[in-house]
Amino acid sequence: MKANRMEAFSDGVWAIIITIMVLEFKLPEGHDWQSLTALGPKFLSYIFSFVYVGLYWNNHHHLLHMVRTINGRLMWLNLLLLFWLTFVPFTTAWMGESHFAATPTALYGIVLLLAATSYWLLQRAIIKQHPTDSTFVSSMGNDWKVKLSPVLYLTAVLTAYLSPWVSGSFFVLVAAIWFFPDKRIEHALRKSDYNQTKP
Amino acid sequence: MKANRMEAFSDGVWAIIITIMVLEFKLPEGHDWQSLTALGPKFLSYIFSFVYVGLYWNNHHHLLHMVRTINGRLMWLNLLLLFWLTFVPFTTAWMGESHFAATPTALYGIVLLLAATSYWLLQRAIIKQHPTDSTFVSSMGNDWKVKLSPVLYLTAVLTAYLSPWVSGSFFVLVAAIWFFPDKRIEHALRKSDYNQTKP
Amino acid sequence: MKANRMEAFSDGVWAIIITIMVLEFKLPEGHDWQSLTALGPKFLSYIFSFVYVGLYWNNHHHLLHMVRTINGRLMWLNLLLLFWLTFVPFTTAWMGESHFAATPTALYGIVLLLAATSYWLLQRAIIKQHPTDSTFVSSMGNDWKVKLSPVLYLTAVLTAYLSPWVSGSFFVLVAAIWFFPDKRIEHALRKSDYNQTKP
Amino acid sequence: MKANRMEAFSDGVWAIIITIMVLEFKLPEGHDWQSLTALGPKFLSYIFSFVYVGLYWNNHHHLLHMVRTINGRLMWLNLLLLFWLTFVPFTTAWMGESHFAATPTALYGIVLLLAATSYWLLQRAIIKQHPTDSTFVSSMGNDWKVKLSPVLYLTAVLTAYLSPWVSGSFFVLVAAIWFFPDKRIEHALRKSDYNQTKP
Repeated sequence: MKANRMEAFSDGVWAIIITIMVLEFKLPEGHDWQSLTALGPKFLSYIFSFVYVGLYWNNHHHLLHMVRTINGRLMWLNLLLLFWLTFVPFTTAWMGESHFAATPTALYGIVLLLAATSYWLLQRAIIKQHPTDSTFVSSMGNDWKVKLSPVLYLTAVLTAYLSPWVSGSFFVLVAAIWFFPDKRIEHALRKSDYNQTKP
Repeated sequence: MKANRMEAFSDGVWAIIITIMVLEFKLPEGHDWQSLTALGPKFLSYIFSFVYVGLYWNNHHHLLHMVRTINGRLMWLNLLLLFWLTFVPFTTAWMGESHFAATPTALYGIVLLLAATSYWLLQRAIIKQHPTDSTFVSSMGNDWKVKLSPVLYLTAVLTAYLSPWVSGSFFVLVAAIWFFPDKRIEHALRKSDYNQTKP
Repeated sequence: MKANRMEAFSDGVWAIIITIMVLEFKLPEGHDWQSLTALGPKFLSYIFSFVYVGLYWNNHHHLLHMVRTINGRLMWLNLLLLFWLTFVPFTTAWMGESHFAATPTALYGIVLLLAATSYWLLQRAIIKQHPTDSTFVSSMGNDWKVKLSPVLYLTAVLTAYLSPWVSGSFFVLVAAIWFFPDKRIEHALRKSDYNQTKP
Repeated sequence: MKANRMEAFSDGVWAIIITIMVLEFKLPEGHDWQSLTALGPKFLSYIFSFVYVGLYWNNHHHLLHMVRTINGRLMWLNLLLLFWLTFVPFTTAWMGESHFAATPTALYGIVLLLAATSYWLLQRAIIKQHPTDSTFVSSMGNDWKVKLSPVLYLTAVLTAYLSPWVSGSFFVLVAAIWFFPDKRIEHALRKSDYNQTKP
């Protein structure tokens, strides 16, 4: 029950984030297609952020699915993750408004880097809570995605000063490796359903 | 349980959309009825959007009611639907502020067209997931509404350059055909309740 | 289950309404108590609206508590209620910003009048759905509050042109008669819990 | 069930509060790190508020966990708590924008003082509702945190006119004493799980 509540709270925050991000789309002056083109970079940066939030929503669900009890540590690590993600509407708007200028793009990456690191800490704390021999830990223990993402974000941050295209391709890369939910967890879940039932 | 969560997330997004749309109603300068008249077109376009979101809320519920498990494909198609709908507050405000000018009205229709197409893809993916002989598929298989809506939206988009009244009547038409929840699904649901119970 | 979902959706809308209303409190220019005084009327009108939304939240819960199934009619009447309530942040801000000028105060009352009428229609539709002899109907059948409220709101609207104080006292009066949850329903609920269990 | 709904409503309000607070971060004019520095004080005040809301979320959950039925009194005390907390985005923005000037910092403390007092009233009402000999009351009865917090907030308010640093350290102190969920309640809960099950 407690895990459900943390999940519902996080879901609420993500639903708000993706919806209020569009509030940053100021109404254009004119009423023709021409006047919309100024919103192009904002639209592109919104797509990025929408996908990232969608990925967090999905993977967070997988992560929490096997958690039995939420202690204070898990709760605060989850809040730390949400803390960084609440900045996504701001960094998305700044990156878009600046037409992917170096510093706004770097800041965009820094916030995602901090969120990804929080996610990694959260996952580690969850693993620690479970006995070493469980199906869950064996499936999560070597999750290269969680470890690789911060590295890729860091690269995106640093390359923002070279070119927005190089930086952007690293952002796309992180989204791509996360796009499909981790088959191993799904598989482990299906197997563990036979052996045990979650209270 | 998973289907419930996707439903709750979507509900959250829709609740936020209809509520923040009113934030686009800027306070009028004066304090008399005269100064309110400028908000007339915004009010009219808000009514449209409120009804559409209400329709999505209702029909989405019917659609998901018989889904047993949510896989990655369904989740992303659902997020694609939400992605387009998050633009509704923006297009609603632009259409209203421009007094139903051609391009803002066309854009309003394009966003709804993209949302309707996503809904159609989502429904098709759900049907695919279920065995062909189930009550659900037989009731959904020939859902003319889902196929007709994109066509009507496209017509509304194209006729926006002729007259806002012609375009608007197509918007009203889509709302009208969706207004009542599909009797067939309700009927199938009631029948299937005798034969099986959803886990 | 369906009734729960309509409740959750309505709760979401109300939670957003009371929270975004405060977004209308623009930051004052200065940094002293003096500069806050301009927010006084906004604060007062916010208190009104917060109490009204709280009352809807509470009484709506009581109303839906005994509903067994939500049909299309109930759903749309509920959406009609939410439609009018989404204007509360706008009318609250206009009434406050205008220092309770006649027309903004009248509009504030009109929106509440329309919401109260929708609530009355919703209650009537729920009563119709239930067999006449049930405990629920006998407790709701003569609900003078629901019938009196629109009359009081109308009076508040009309007296707004006489004096904001007269109008305001009618607003206070409606809040006062609703403040305590209807004892009869609570009583009926407690009694019916012995005889039947809601599915 | 009723307690769950009040919890879900409160959770919704808190999720919205922490997410819309970031809307107060206006996009900087420039596109370099220099132009971000102006947001420094806003960022700092946001951290404070995020932690406070997180603490309310967590402790509120502990508080409600053992409540069996929500009556009108509890519901309105809970709404009073939410009422004050909805002002947090406003006071956070004002305190940050003013670079922790005396009056905005004092107002920030006053709102938290009023929220803390509401929380204390809510807790007292919950204790009253339960029989004196229950595990719950014995664990809550001498909750020094709830009684100490208003005193510390009051001190923070008064010292705001001496120095923002002194005032700020009292804010940090309140957060610190609440940071860890009350072990006694957790302990009592675990013990009571053996003896009774909550309906």
